[in-house]
Amino acid sequence: MKIKNRVTDLFKIQYPIIQGGMVWASGWKLASAVSEEGGLGLIGAGSMKPQLLREHIRKCKNATNKPFGVNLPLVREDIEELINVIIDEGIKIVFTSAGHPAKHIEKFKSAGIIVAHVVSSVKQANKAGQAGCDAIVGEGVEAGGHNGKDEITTVALIPQLVDAVNIPVIAAGGIADGRGVLAALVLGAEGVQMGTRFAATKESSAHEVYKQKIAEAGDNDTVLILRKALLARVIKNPFAIEAIKAEEEGKSREEILELLNTKREKLGIFEGDDVNGMLEAGQSAGLIKEILTVKDVFAKIISEYDKAVENICKK
Amino acid sequence: MKIKNRVTDLFKIQYPIIQGGMVWASGWKLASAVSEEGGLGLIGAGSMKPQLLREHIRKCKNATNKPFGVNLPLVREDIEELINVIIDEGIKIVFTSAGHPAKHIEKFKSAGIIVAHVVSSVKQANKAGQAGCDAIVGEGVEAGGHNGKDEITTVALIPQLVDAVNIPVIAAGGIADGRGVLAALVLGAEGVQMGTRFAATKESSAHEVYKQKIAEAGDNDTVLILRKALLARVIKNPFAIEAIKAEEEGKSREEILELLNTKREKLGIFEGDDVNGMLEAGQSAGLIKEILTVKDVFAKIISEYDKAVENICKK
Repeated sequence: MKIKNRVTDLFKIQYPIIQGGMVWASGWKLASAVSEEGGLGLIGAGSMKPQLLREHIRKCKNATNKPFGVNLPLVREDIEELINVIIDEGIKIVFTSAGHPAKHIEKFKSAGIIVAHVVSSVKQANKAGQAGCDAIVGEGVEAGGHNGKDEITTVALIPQLVDAVNIPVIAAGGIADGRGVLAALVLGAEGVQMGTRFAATKESSAHEVYKQKIAEAGDNDTVLILRKALLARVIKNPFAIEAIKAEEEGKSREEILELLNTKREKLGIFEGDDVNGMLEAGQSAGLIKEILTVKDVFAKIISEYDKAVENICKK
Repeated sequence: MKIKNRVTDLFKIQYPIIQGGMVWASGWKLASAVSEEGGLGLIGAGSMKPQLLREHIRKCKNATNKPFGVNLPLVREDIEELINVIIDEGIKIVFTSAGHPAKHIEKFKSAGIIVAHVVSSVKQANKAGQAGCDAIVGEGVEAGGHNGKDEITTVALIPQLVDAVNIPVIAAGGIADGRGVLAALVLGAEGVQMGTRFAATKESSAHEVYKQKIAEAGDNDTVLILRKALLARVIKNPFAIEAIKAEEEGKSREEILELLNTKREKLGIFEGDDVNGMLEAGQSAGLIKEILTVKDVFAKIISEYDKAVENICKK
């Protein structure tokens, strides 16, 4: 895998493979391992209070000299505090999601921070470009966790984003192996972001039960839930089935939000309750058969990618 | 585009590009035009009575000497009659969908017919392989019209199908240009099936209003409706919004089926009623900007494909 493009240049990385920031799964250990292998690791601030984020950033700096970043969901109430920690600690790469980047971009830019924003439609991509973002992550509806309302799939979304914006597009959703990486580049993306594949690594801070659930999942073992509240793709466990039933019965947004009330994400991903917890995962779970080290994930992806390139180019 | 693989060999075609069989859009005119360009045209029997299917087959034979086939939804009540017409008229390629191929495969096989079956999950793919099908079409949830319940996207589905079965896999869903064709091959498919792109051609028998709606559609202008009845992806018009509302209110299967009662497909696709009709289209509609001739569609796809190959292989 020899790729030099705007994404490898922007983040100063060897491979345009980005580890998605995930709640309860992507702390300093995962992020630094990914960066050490030549990808871009992201600390997922979504499940961290400002002080904990600071600790993870410091540990990550100790663990690697290579570039890493922070993923920041912009809907957080303590967003200003989190941004202050990021700037204070000298972070130079931020991936923002779930919100409007325009509100915060000046603060990031004046601190010399590269900003990539996660989008799920052409409209959001144009907004991110106009706001001054350096790159976008185009996330298809097959991705795990919280998802854009548009429900556009990776194969349909990526070429439309590439045609719409001038900044580099990173593809996310449904990608877990080297074939997926090459397919994303063929569609015009200049990098990929993978969540589920890295959630199921040894270095992920998620619970073993949750990692095992990803490794065991087949092609149709994830489902989109909470359309009326906060759309998310999760593994079809008893909690998910309960949520689907509530939606089918026409329950209100308030009733659905109540279902979520007991910190379902932490319960499922961090504490390993596979009955009552919310097990966020993408459809790529069906491609993931074992829990590997980050080193082995990279070796596998690179070898699959090289083989896929050879298949196309020998013709 | 120089591709020789099991799909081009099986159907004796120049390009592994198959035009999906579609109700009210794919008669002899479209099918013969696609076959003439070196792809595989399919007459969509879904909206044809047996006698009409016979007429279309005869006209298609007059229009081209190249291989073409028939798409047959197996849920039809007059399925035996339709199969008899197909055999009687000497058709040698059948694409089956919406049902179990095992029930009819012997009849097809003893008439020397090649059978490809449309699937939307690994489970269905394995069944089709065991039944003796010669190929499968793996259709992602981004595809237009009736859809598998599994809601698996093309980028997640195709590699899983390729890993599961030994017969060739044809990718469908979200593909409308040469980048999509190459991405599908990278994922392991040996051909693609495109519906929406060919529905919006001059040779399609659909109404101009419907074709125009496809050309105008943006990335998020289609939606999945009728989850409780007969899942379908359609353009988000007033009828579709009415159907979504009925589902959100928790209406029963019977009430939802009643909504469909007035031949919505014909009304929308063939008669061009863009308010009350059901306008079946895939997410690839966002990539389709104009109504072209089939000849121009092929020229465009081939040139895009060659450029995409060059981009990958020059590296």
